[in-house]
Amino acid sequence: MKKEKFDYTNATVRLWLLAKQTGDLLKMCTERLFSEYDITTENYDVLVTVKYLGDRVNIVEIASWLRRSPNSISMLVDRMVKAGLVRRIRDKRDRRVVYVSITGKGEHILELANPGCWEVIKAILSPLSYEERRTFLSLFDAINRQALQYLNPGEDIQEMMKKRENLHAELMKRLPPYAWMTASEPEHKGGKKKL
Amino acid sequence: MKKEKFDYTNATVRLWLLAKQTGDLLKMCTERLFSEYDITTENYDVLVTVKYLGDRVNIVEIASWLRRSPNSISMLVDRMVKAGLVRRIRDKRDRRVVYVSITGKGEHILELANPGCWEVIKAILSPLSYEERRTFLSLFDAINRQALQYLNPGEDIQEMMKKRENLHAELMKRLPPYAWMTASEPEHKGGKKKL
Repeated sequence: MKKEKFDYTNATVRLWLLAKQTGDLLKMCTERLFSEYDITTENYDVLVTVKYLGDRVNIVEIASWLRRSPNSISMLVDRMVKAGLVRRIRDKRDRRVVYVSITGKGEHILELANPGCWEVIKAILSPLSYEERRTFLSLFDAINRQALQYLNPGEDIQEMMKKRENLHAELMKRLPPYAWMTASEPEHKGGKKKL
Repeated sequence: MKKEKFDYTNATVRLWLLAKQTGDLLKMCTERLFSEYDITTENYDVLVTVKYLGDRVNIVEIASWLRRSPNSISMLVDRMVKAGLVRRIRDKRDRRVVYVSITGKGEHILELANPGCWEVIKAILSPLSYEERRTFLSLFDAINRQALQYLNPGEDIQEMMKKRENLHAELMKRLPPYAWMTASEPEHKGGKKKL
């Protein structure tokens, strides 16, 4: 076995494992914070989606945004309805359509948890400069594109990613202002140390 | 709000979401393949860990390697014992210690699923050159280090990551040879297209 080939396979396997597992590690980081407010990271993600992605989002839209199955989101929303965090609202014009909206309690918890969550995000990403963040993003985009192509053969992936980009822009417009106010200054490139 | 600051926060939020959600997307890609063998991606990950990480791994080691809680791995292993994929073995010298080992059925399924899984990994990572894979890895390493520091204040993170690296080397030694034989040649840099 050639050394080069070994290095290549080694890097490939490590990359796959890290790409697959880093999300779980990041979820653990916020879990501790959210448990103070009696919610899970999953609950928080649904609250953020319902509150900032649009006024009227349904189960399928929440599932698609969070990269989860509609079935698992539906069960999650059921539990969140019981906990008083969100409610299901039937559309007046089309009774078959059901939207999910945030309750006063959900909104209150979101307001309490948001600043801490933003602090965690900043702390975990702090070693990365703005340029490194951009590189990281384009690498993620490349494998996300491939994964979407694999999962949706024959579909217009460009269009799919464009749609998601628009949703992200929508979310950014609605995010509360402390996110901007407390962000590290781009002048410093956000990098505390180099890789 | 300054444009630069917006771009910076925008990139940060997108990066956090992608880092958190890409793993779920990758799991969806292998889920379809594994369902042909009546196993989930979780089952496959445990089979790989039990078979290739070492001869005698316990629940805590499996959980740590897969970045999961020992409790959730314990329940998963219970279900896999019922499905005949793994067995629990009590240590002869210390009856309190329980190891998990793979059964003949588990091994057979692993052999069937491995080549297809490797094809998925190659396909999803195909747009990335060797250099890009290395960059991706070092970016992942940087945020993993931060996350581990956040989750384990006061502990020696360098040592923790070194230990994981050794486990990875162990896994690479035991991986079946088709992984090497079918890997893209490093001569081609593995890149079908540039970012």
